[in-house]
Amino acid sequence: MLDALFRPRAVAVIGASNRRLTIGYRIVENLVDSGFKGPIFPVNPKAAYIKNFIAYKDILDVPLEVDLAHIIVKNTRVAEEIEKCGQKGVKVVIVNTAGFGEIGPDGVRLQEEMLAVARKYGVRVFGPNCQGIMNSDPEVRAYCNFTFTRMVEGSISVMAQSGGVGEVINNRLYELGLGFRMYASYGNQADVNATEILEYWGNDAGTKVILLHIETLQDPAGFARVARAITKRKPILAMKTGRTKLGAKAVSSHTGGMMAVDTTTNLLLEKCGILTFNDEEELCQVARALAQLPVAEGNRVGIITNTGGPGIIVTDEITERGCELAEISDASRDTLEGSLYPEASLANPIDVLATATPEHYRLAAETLMSDPGVDLVFVNFITPFFVDTEGVARGLTEVAKGAAKPMVACVMTEKEGWRKTLQIFNEGGIPTFDMPEMAGKVAAAVARYGALQRRQHCPPLSFNDIDTTAATRLIEKTRAARRSFMAQADAFSLLAAYGLPVPAYCETRDLDGALAAATEIGYPVTIKVELESVVHKSDAGGVALNLKDDQSLSAAYRKMMENFPGAVCFIQKFLDPGIEVMVGANRETAGLGHVVAFGLGGIFVEVMKDVVFRLNPLSADDIEEMIKGIKGYPILEGIRGRAGADIEKLKEVISRVAILLYNHDEIDEMDLNPIFAYEKGREPGLVDVRIKLK
Amino acid sequence: MLDALFRPRAVAVIGASNRRLTIGYRIVENLVDSGFKGPIFPVNPKAAYIKNFIAYKDILDVPLEVDLAHIIVKNTRVAEEIEKCGQKGVKVVIVNTAGFGEIGPDGVRLQEEMLAVARKYGVRVFGPNCQGIMNSDPEVRAYCNFTFTRMVEGSISVMAQSGGVGEVINNRLYELGLGFRMYASYGNQADVNATEILEYWGNDAGTKVILLHIETLQDPAGFARVARAITKRKPILAMKTGRTKLGAKAVSSHTGGMMAVDTTTNLLLEKCGILTFNDEEELCQVARALAQLPVAEGNRVGIITNTGGPGIIVTDEITERGCELAEISDASRDTLEGSLYPEASLANPIDVLATATPEHYRLAAETLMSDPGVDLVFVNFITPFFVDTEGVARGLTEVAKGAAKPMVACVMTEKEGWRKTLQIFNEGGIPTFDMPEMAGKVAAAVARYGALQRRQHCPPLSFNDIDTTAATRLIEKTRAARRSFMAQADAFSLLAAYGLPVPAYCETRDLDGALAAATEIGYPVTIKVELESVVHKSDAGGVALNLKDDQSLSAAYRKMMENFPGAVCFIQKFLDPGIEVMVGANRETAGLGHVVAFGLGGIFVEVMKDVVFRLNPLSADDIEEMIKGIKGYPILEGIRGRAGADIEKLKEVISRVAILLYNHDEIDEMDLNPIFAYEKGREPGLVDVRIKLK
Repeated sequence: MLDALFRPRAVAVIGASNRRLTIGYRIVENLVDSGFKGPIFPVNPKAAYIKNFIAYKDILDVPLEVDLAHIIVKNTRVAEEIEKCGQKGVKVVIVNTAGFGEIGPDGVRLQEEMLAVARKYGVRVFGPNCQGIMNSDPEVRAYCNFTFTRMVEGSISVMAQSGGVGEVINNRLYELGLGFRMYASYGNQADVNATEILEYWGNDAGTKVILLHIETLQDPAGFARVARAITKRKPILAMKTGRTKLGAKAVSSHTGGMMAVDTTTNLLLEKCGILTFNDEEELCQVARALAQLPVAEGNRVGIITNTGGPGIIVTDEITERGCELAEISDASRDTLEGSLYPEASLANPIDVLATATPEHYRLAAETLMSDPGVDLVFVNFITPFFVDTEGVARGLTEVAKGAAKPMVACVMTEKEGWRKTLQIFNEGGIPTFDMPEMAGKVAAAVARYGALQRRQHCPPLSFNDIDTTAATRLIEKTRAARRSFMAQADAFSLLAAYGLPVPAYCETRDLDGALAAATEIGYPVTIKVELESVVHKSDAGGVALNLKDDQSLSAAYRKMMENFPGAVCFIQKFLDPGIEVMVGANRETAGLGHVVAFGLGGIFVEVMKDVVFRLNPLSADDIEEMIKGIKGYPILEGIRGRAGADIEKLKEVISRVAILLYNHDEIDEMDLNPIFAYEKGREPGLVDVRIKLK
Repeated sequence: MLDALFRPRAVAVIGASNRRLTIGYRIVENLVDSGFKGPIFPVNPKAAYIKNFIAYKDILDVPLEVDLAHIIVKNTRVAEEIEKCGQKGVKVVIVNTAGFGEIGPDGVRLQEEMLAVARKYGVRVFGPNCQGIMNSDPEVRAYCNFTFTRMVEGSISVMAQSGGVGEVINNRLYELGLGFRMYASYGNQADVNATEILEYWGNDAGTKVILLHIETLQDPAGFARVARAITKRKPILAMKTGRTKLGAKAVSSHTGGMMAVDTTTNLLLEKCGILTFNDEEELCQVARALAQLPVAEGNRVGIITNTGGPGIIVTDEITERGCELAEISDASRDTLEGSLYPEASLANPIDVLATATPEHYRLAAETLMSDPGVDLVFVNFITPFFVDTEGVARGLTEVAKGAAKPMVACVMTEKEGWRKTLQIFNEGGIPTFDMPEMAGKVAAAVARYGALQRRQHCPPLSFNDIDTTAATRLIEKTRAARRSFMAQADAFSLLAAYGLPVPAYCETRDLDGALAAATEIGYPVTIKVELESVVHKSDAGGVALNLKDDQSLSAAYRKMMENFPGAVCFIQKFLDPGIEVMVGANRETAGLGHVVAFGLGGIFVEVMKDVVFRLNPLSADDIEEMIKGIKGYPILEGIRGRAGADIEKLKEVISRVAILLYNHDEIDEMDLNPIFAYEKGREPGLVDVRIKLK
């Protein structure tokens, strides 16, 4: 429980100072300015008082109980201050001091020493190398932080890995008149970590929406477990920075973390039902909307506008982001036709005209709210001089109040002159935005949030013909042989154990065996040399395809034995090429599922990068989206009169692979490339596999 | 000359009113409130006075000269008012009244009548169905418009096809403290059109940047001519709305214009050196930067930051938009190393640390300004309590003043508390932005503007081996035959006349001729039936490929004659397939060059939509960007050990096609698909061509 951190009854500041340009001064000042509801105890061995407070030489001199102490002394002295905090009974310390884990081995040692002392006394440590926390709850008002952003009570809680990003977000929420509920920027997470804070906020009734800024996740699996539970109840919105190669490099030099562009984190966030963003402004604006709107049941948007141009912009924005323009029902159209100006446009966007009255707006909004084909009502409203704009705002808020569908408004106005109109909108629970682009982005995000909510309930996949015992045996066999790549025969057997369609195969050590195998399998066949070290077998002459009879098999076999004397050979039924697809998997982050990739093979993956990734375990929705998400999807459907692929059978392949990966955490990488997909009714063929174990 | 419109010395309002919620009231009110510098004459036959002014029964009763008259009377009465304006000597009328060309045939007739009257007297007409104009020049202060946005003097002029979009932009410029120079929203453009206004603003010294909102261009060719001349001197920024299918449909229902997604306009804007945007906020912010910054000489950005996280965001934004992180020179690094904090990070982004002093910032900025590897300096500055932020701002403005390179700053702060710091930045000529995403977008746009400026000077292409006489003859022959598709032989001859590499070919009417031709051309050959009506020749059995000898040729020829008795045949050298590419062209807009497409053939174009479009005439830069711009470009470079294509030869093909299209406006569509590209040193082969004339 983090109450001592977020709801401290008394705060000490060890290292408090009277010098204005110091953190030790600023924290005391911030606590005072923000109206902290408990006593503040500056600790400074040299000063008699700090600001208006007696300064104590030592935390142990403080006369009352202290829940939380800031520590701002030199890094080498932090451990001894924690020792004293322990003796005093302080429950949690915020170590603002830097120079720990982030600076290398010396710092790591200091961090461990500090933690050991803390553990001895059961003191929790927040940080080190951090800003701190804030809680705007009027019962608490704790500004335990040295930053400059202003604290106004709100319902959005913000956790930022980068203090700078946290300040930008907080400051923007302040400018938008939203404020925040709680804030945390946790630095090195030596003890209290992001997951624990997230869980705490998940249980905080005052937190309606959670915003996260993430560079790298310390504990992805734990984070996922907690986040998934929370997103069922309240929205989490996240911004993961470092999405480009150079951006990721900058993260790496900033945090000492990994350097590659991190695809797993975004997949994980999405999987947890978290909305992700690349823009702080959009993040803040969507948070504002979700804090007050009902969940959208679908993506069909009905637009009401009194100005054509901005209506077009909204249409561009929402349809580009996966929304549809709702089809207005005939009944709705009849209602509108009888009531709006005769020149009004009744297609969606419904253009009520610049001179539309409050009654027109109200009626149009009511009509869309009750139209079963509309999931979200978008109001585009410019405020002409010759319209009763306050009347429009009042009418719309009456429609929106208690409605089951969300209403988002773009109110284009001069804010000083139309202050009252804006106030009516905002107090009436309709989130308003200044410009049609942002309003459109927010509406699309509201719809996307609804989709994520529905998505979490899709059933897991299962098959009852899987032979897990055989599978486990094959993997154990490979590990016993201290191989990292599975032998071809074992890899195919593993696939077969999971009910995957593999062509008939056999392993052999001599020509007679090869010929016998071929007879049993039936020509044509393919032979491949079985050597762990030869990865690019074809280039090295280790593969012969489409052998049609004994004679060509014999010739190919002899030639192969010249190149690889004594090697074991793998013989397999040769399949006529179908549409090439590939499924790949690798595990980027311990504790999480594999990242699974689907695409068309060859150039489509390598050059065109036409691949969709998802994090295992895959749901039916995931698999559907993976297949339909590639640009080359029409090829699978069949183009130019050519047959397409049996897509249901492909889905089954991906499902079974997903279960295989889920059950066998020992698999590090897996490549099924190519898989031949055939016309409807014919099983796909997994003709090549590479499985690497940990 | 549009002085009477934008710099009127006296304004009449025909249809002025005392009823507050009318346009006739509002225009008078706006003229007064904005401080118009000349007399105002309300015209209303029924009122004695309007606001504080005598009302005239008739424009002819007005005692002084009038340059500009608003007309707000009923659409059927507009022509007679223009008649009187003509008699009075009014130079220009703004017809705010709607119900003309935009409503169909009746309106078109009214519009023509009105124009005829105006022409009789030499009265210019602005509108109808429009907002009007504004000019914030302190000598003029003309708010000839009924909107609500506030007029503050500035250096950015705004022209908006949609009045609503214009209001959103104007209002945002006002909020940003920028104001505007002039404004126009021109409605139906019956007489004064966008091109003429653009030209006027091009010559207006007070206009530093021009912003355009465009739905459709009325006069693309004239617009292009004028815009191209202006962008050499001052930036034009444009927003074209209706970029999605549904957005375009909304434009269509709004303006009655074309419905398809319009690719030409954006290509045209780009070609004129106009920066294009999809977001009004970004448009306004970039305008702010370009109004005060020098042109960037390249795309290499040097970043100085005192906070890691936002530095990463900037890196993501700029590199995603074509900028590079500058390589900091060794000399620069030495200078920085000796002066910044020892913990500062000297890689780009240069992290001067949160506690960086004014001297640190100043020195880092000076160093990057003088580093030859840096084209643009980006300052990321969060304002901690413990830093002399005004000193930082002062130091930076001193560095930026008169510098040859642009400096853009993201100043992340609480605006009330740090008002003075922001003021120093802004008065010192450094454009500042609140959030790193927008600041990064602006920096990238500043670099992109520099690239467009350099781009306009690239030389046109020419070849001196082109036989234009032969080419013209071939086209005339086709037209004389009243065909729209050119015969194969003629089309290939046309290509050959432009020095394009076509395989040897011949037309024949009997088997003997075919055999003789094949002998001369050399086997293998391809034959195709020559019939204008058979478009999909292969499907209809009208094509036989790769015929290796007399025997197979004879058989194929006979079979073809069974299908197409008496048809003329086209025989051509068969080429072994190379890498397939395609060049296509069609003319979407009269008066403009063809839209030329380049891509890999087949699936890459049809399914993957991997095509780059440019508007002819093409520059060398265009052609380079078309080829390198496709995702499949690595295939042309050669992948997986396969030979690539001779890219220089492909460029020559595109160049020659571009000249052919430029010279022959009669060509409506042209398809070269496939073109076989071969390894370095071998000429490509244009093996199939389809040319459709107007």
